[in-house]
Amino acid sequence: MAISDKRDKVVAVQPAGDLSPFSGLYLDRYELTMALAYRKAGRADEPAVFDYFFRQLPFGGGYAVFAGLGTLVEALEAFRFGPDECAFLRHDGFPDDFLDYLRGFAFRGSIWAPPEGEPVFPIEPIVRVEGGLLETQIIETLLLNVVNFQTLIATKAARCRAAAAGRAVSEFGFRRAHGLGARWASRAACIGGASTTSNLDAARAGALRTAGTMAHAFVQSYEREIDAFRCYAHVHGSRTILLLDTYDTLRSGLPNAITIARELESRGAALAGVRLDSGDLAYLSVRVREGLDQAGFPNVKIVASNQLDEYVIRSLLGQGAPIDIFGVGTSLATGMPDAALDGIYKLAAVTESPRIKCSESVTKTTLPGRKTVTRFRDDQGHFRADAVHFASDPPPRIMVHPHEPHPRLDLSSWTAEPLQRRVVADGRVEHPLPGVEEAAAYARQREQALPPEHRRFENPHRYKVGLSPELRSGRDLLLAEKQQNHLP
Amino acid sequence: MAISDKRDKVVAVQPAGDLSPFSGLYLDRYELTMALAYRKAGRADEPAVFDYFFRQLPFGGGYAVFAGLGTLVEALEAFRFGPDECAFLRHDGFPDDFLDYLRGFAFRGSIWAPPEGEPVFPIEPIVRVEGGLLETQIIETLLLNVVNFQTLIATKAARCRAAAAGRAVSEFGFRRAHGLGARWASRAACIGGASTTSNLDAARAGALRTAGTMAHAFVQSYEREIDAFRCYAHVHGSRTILLLDTYDTLRSGLPNAITIARELESRGAALAGVRLDSGDLAYLSVRVREGLDQAGFPNVKIVASNQLDEYVIRSLLGQGAPIDIFGVGTSLATGMPDAALDGIYKLAAVTESPRIKCSESVTKTTLPGRKTVTRFRDDQGHFRADAVHFASDPPPRIMVHPHEPHPRLDLSSWTAEPLQRRVVADGRVEHPLPGVEEAAAYARQREQALPPEHRRFENPHRYKVGLSPELRSGRDLLLAEKQQNHLP
Repeated sequence: MAISDKRDKVVAVQPAGDLSPFSGLYLDRYELTMALAYRKAGRADEPAVFDYFFRQLPFGGGYAVFAGLGTLVEALEAFRFGPDECAFLRHDGFPDDFLDYLRGFAFRGSIWAPPEGEPVFPIEPIVRVEGGLLETQIIETLLLNVVNFQTLIATKAARCRAAAAGRAVSEFGFRRAHGLGARWASRAACIGGASTTSNLDAARAGALRTAGTMAHAFVQSYEREIDAFRCYAHVHGSRTILLLDTYDTLRSGLPNAITIARELESRGAALAGVRLDSGDLAYLSVRVREGLDQAGFPNVKIVASNQLDEYVIRSLLGQGAPIDIFGVGTSLATGMPDAALDGIYKLAAVTESPRIKCSESVTKTTLPGRKTVTRFRDDQGHFRADAVHFASDPPPRIMVHPHEPHPRLDLSSWTAEPLQRRVVADGRVEHPLPGVEEAAAYARQREQALPPEHRRFENPHRYKVGLSPELRSGRDLLLAEKQQNHLP
Repeated sequence: MAISDKRDKVVAVQPAGDLSPFSGLYLDRYELTMALAYRKAGRADEPAVFDYFFRQLPFGGGYAVFAGLGTLVEALEAFRFGPDECAFLRHDGFPDDFLDYLRGFAFRGSIWAPPEGEPVFPIEPIVRVEGGLLETQIIETLLLNVVNFQTLIATKAARCRAAAAGRAVSEFGFRRAHGLGARWASRAACIGGASTTSNLDAARAGALRTAGTMAHAFVQSYEREIDAFRCYAHVHGSRTILLLDTYDTLRSGLPNAITIARELESRGAALAGVRLDSGDLAYLSVRVREGLDQAGFPNVKIVASNQLDEYVIRSLLGQGAPIDIFGVGTSLATGMPDAALDGIYKLAAVTESPRIKCSESVTKTTLPGRKTVTRFRDDQGHFRADAVHFASDPPPRIMVHPHEPHPRLDLSSWTAEPLQRRVVADGRVEHPLPGVEEAAAYARQREQALPPEHRRFENPHRYKVGLSPELRSGRDLLLAEKQQNHLP
């Protein structure tokens, strides 16, 4: 069949519960060796604050689309140590008294984050986690694994959608995705900009809208292409999308598709679309459109696939290719060419004492203390700047550059809004999180508030992220002190 | 703690059964729309043959390391349509009589493949699937998703291992991997060349050896670095690896580590290692080695991490960096910079009638018919050429180029061995497949049979893959016929 036109919400059957692929083992070994040491030292429950942030935007773009929060919350609920997990950990060398502790473990901390779909930027703390030192430490890899990947893919999808300029994007990347990572690739793609996915596993888990056409094998399996088309159309009626390029797009696929369109029409049905999956898509789509129009089928849609990405989509549309739906596979599901977002999770405070990770370069030194981010909008509602500041302070009226000495920005004429909201309080989700469709709508709305110079592909203007003067001087003082103290 | 020294085999607790993340929904929607059409046409059980192959080697290398077969077999066992799957599919628009059919579905076909760890090359059929048309069609995405990704990662790991020239490689990429794709990234990395992984979820599922050190957060959580080191060493004794770069590697981390090494020595224990995670690893590792040696600790190992890949590893060793263990994260777990292997799954025959997918270029036209691959070794045991031929024919004595007119290669003086073995017969696994450690050993052994000119990084010599003269002429005849027939 064709692009699913179900608008009602698909019920998510899978996530949480027994079928969750998450468990307490969703971590790196060092998190447990550290946890064991914290516990032996009696420090497991010391109050700690961690920040998630990244240093570099993916794809050379001007912003990223935050995603993964819904999955993170679901994963935290499944982050437990049952008999199977403890048996494995005993075998891996952990002592019994520690396993007894883990058996009763559940994350009871709190999490502040933006809604999924929010534009986010380098350096600013995006997610803040507070709780006991042990519980906040051992979810490090879980949080990074979920948020880094989904933010990468949502960002890629937003770029593909921007390039498609109003045409639909469908996520087709399951076959080249990274194993079950495909499930979250599709989810994030649908938050960032895809309308549908071909991946039914992901559609079930994330309540996503689905799409599907046919493969070359289907056409090959019949002696004649027309027989394959006819059989498929007989079963799928007005949802039929025919793949034209198994033998020869213009000399065989197109005329056979027109024959089928006429047959469907005589039955009171209508061919939904045709798909091009090889060759010069700009040339072929023009010729196929002409052929369909001349035969009286202007409503038959053209779906194009085959190694598309945002640049190919833009190029095709720039050449006037009359493509209605772009099936984007590998580059979307894997976040090519970056393949990863470099987000990190760093300790910012312990028992209200701010902590810092030093570096030879101040640009890589972390920001200490319990912080939050305020976003400033101008009187037209456009996002103008994000200021990082101590959470106990009100939004600053001035912000300074994170490390350059001079730049200061007066924020006083703009409207302040918090970037982060508390989504988990003492281990409990505060209120149901938005689903994928709602997050996608939010992403569209927020993207419009971002000035266009931050959204262009080539040399996007850098969005301003600064520090409150108090945070900057706090950081600089602590850095000097640490570097002094740690001389031998 | 440190690098796990457990040599005994970890028991895989997770895979198959209720905790499998696989189900009958592990597919693209079009596989089910085609399946529905096959069934309505009464063609579900027509005998069909599909081939898995790829066209281009990843990373510009000279060979790929086949991986994923064990996971594929496990996934096929879980590829069923239970009540939850059918409820979702009904909602997604599939008719009840088809769902009744799917409820009873299980893959009953047969699979031929090389063992995991086998060097494989472009164009040759690597996996062959035979069975009914419907069952062989609907596992397309499952097979591609599993084999493309794991083969990509195993190949990357083999490259890192080759660059490390005898030093150990540990897979550290969980935090930047693609969601749960991390599980199979670690598995494939351990087949291809990593000795250990930091990922405990993957270690449990795949019976992998584990490794772990400590994070900057652990050091930061103490007022003084020496206190953090002392606490950790107190708990982990001779398995302690200390992270040196939280504040200042040479002025703080190194002298503090030496203090701890002395304290451990006085307790009859020994510091296992130190880790460097930032800065100039070539320079720092030399200075740290000198410091440790001068203090009387020549056996303390140096672990290095931070954006490593095969080229950085080679460069570090070329500069004489005395690094013992390379922790390779993002690039290994995501297969950077390629991020995907372009393997495809194409119909080769239906009811013993060979099938072809045409293309404007003969290089992209598929090879028709039920085929297999014979590998030829010279009298020194080196791999010299792979010949693709009809499975019903004996190994050829001559092979021809897949599309160039002239080259022919005389194979008659070499020893022939089959590349593929039957691993699944009529839905049943023939005999238990090798585990990861065994596959890794096989990969090492087979790699040694590949002449070095195919293993170098720069412009590797192209390994010869050809066709039997019968296959080539069969392909050319069918191509001419199809292109003739499908003219309108």
